[in-house]
Amino acid sequence: MAGIVELLSLNNPVFKSYVFWTGVLVIKMLLMSLLTGLQRFKTKTFANPEDLMSPKLKVKFDDPNVERVRRAHRNDLENIVPFFIIGLLYTLTNPSVFLAVNLFRAVGIARIVHTIVYAVVVLPQPSRALSFFVALGATVYMALQVIAAAAF
Amino acid sequence: MAGIVELLSLNNPVFKSYVFWTGVLVIKMLLMSLLTGLQRFKTKTFANPEDLMSPKLKVKFDDPNVERVRRAHRNDLENIVPFFIIGLLYTLTNPSVFLAVNLFRAVGIARIVHTIVYAVVVLPQPSRALSFFVALGATVYMALQVIAAAAF
Amino acid sequence: MAGIVELLSLNNPVFKSYVFWTGVLVIKMLLMSLLTGLQRFKTKTFANPEDLMSPKLKVKFDDPNVERVRRAHRNDLENIVPFFIIGLLYTLTNPSVFLAVNLFRAVGIARIVHTIVYAVVVLPQPSRALSFFVALGATVYMALQVIAAAAF
Repeated sequence: MAGIVELLSLNNPVFKSYVFWTGVLVIKMLLMSLLTGLQRFKTKTFANPEDLMSPKLKVKFDDPNVERVRRAHRNDLENIVPFFIIGLLYTLTNPSVFLAVNLFRAVGIARIVHTIVYAVVVLPQPSRALSFFVALGATVYMALQVIAAAAF
Repeated sequence: MAGIVELLSLNNPVFKSYVFWTGVLVIKMLLMSLLTGLQRFKTKTFANPEDLMSPKLKVKFDDPNVERVRRAHRNDLENIVPFFIIGLLYTLTNPSVFLAVNLFRAVGIARIVHTIVYAVVVLPQPSRALSFFVALGATVYMALQVIAAAAF
Repeated sequence: MAGIVELLSLNNPVFKSYVFWTGVLVIKMLLMSLLTGLQRFKTKTFANPEDLMSPKLKVKFDDPNVERVRRAHRNDLENIVPFFIIGLLYTLTNPSVFLAVNLFRAVGIARIVHTIVYAVVVLPQPSRALSFFVALGATVYMALQVIAAAAF
């Protein structure tokens, strides 16, 4: 059986793929803050008095464009963050390379698509629902494999 | 002293317990999205125009049942996510098996109870406060042990 | 090349620094919940009917002091949590000790400053923006190094 030394090495294509997609999704998530900032400046919607750039502005919380990006960002926290930890533990269960690499790819691509159709170019449903459930399904599968590995 | 090879192995009961409870809590957190969706459909409360299933519906943000589940979910992000990383680092400090396994168990069970009394069958306080503080206390203790291991 | 056994050891000053700052930032994040609670009691702003301590009180969602702490807390989730995972993976890329230790220090100190100027003693901009961008820049740099290590 492969041990931790082999599993957590970039020579292991599963770990390599996990590291790559985790890096990409971290960058994607951090960009959401900049996208929120962009919408705040475009719509002059600031949540704190100290952020107002003109004495004529007031704090505002209900701009639909700002709120849309914030909902997409929160959805990332709810779905991508669990993947970060479960993807790492799943790698340690020594899964099939083909399956694992494609699961990571599915999560990575589905979450990028989710952001685009939610907060960049709003597309009609079920585009957002589909991308959401692809990533959710893959993450739940990995979590069940991780639980099984630890429980038996 | 045990090294990383022994510590991050499923033969180490501490790591095994960490992996098990992390998997369970990831599944629990992901279920919150489905619970939110359920409440959205039941109360016809949708946050995005593209989600409205009938031209008669309008976006709505203030349904108390939906908001309750969302608050429980956010509380998970604030409390379970720090456990994911600190539980892993705590495992690497080679703690007592008895203590560590019971701390992980305490966090896991307390956070499941927290969700139930907050968002499934609403129970009067202090049930939610108690479950909140059990998990918080266990996580803070682990974090302090982790800091101590790195600082000295 | 150093392997995982050396990299994930407290004898590695990079890992030691990562573990220390992760522990500190976990404690800092968990304290936000207590700070929110403090503001809730001070301003009698409770979000759930079961939390009201007097029949004269009603649920309230718009107290500016409570909401300010909650925004600071959410900003932590958006920025500190990605650091937790990317700092660990960055440690595995065997970076220069000097650079890595200072990047971790920058994230740790910048995020503590961010909390202080946002939610404890509100300071005028650009104090919050500066602390935000220092931590963001360091995290993005680490994520790009992690992607580069996995992609080539």
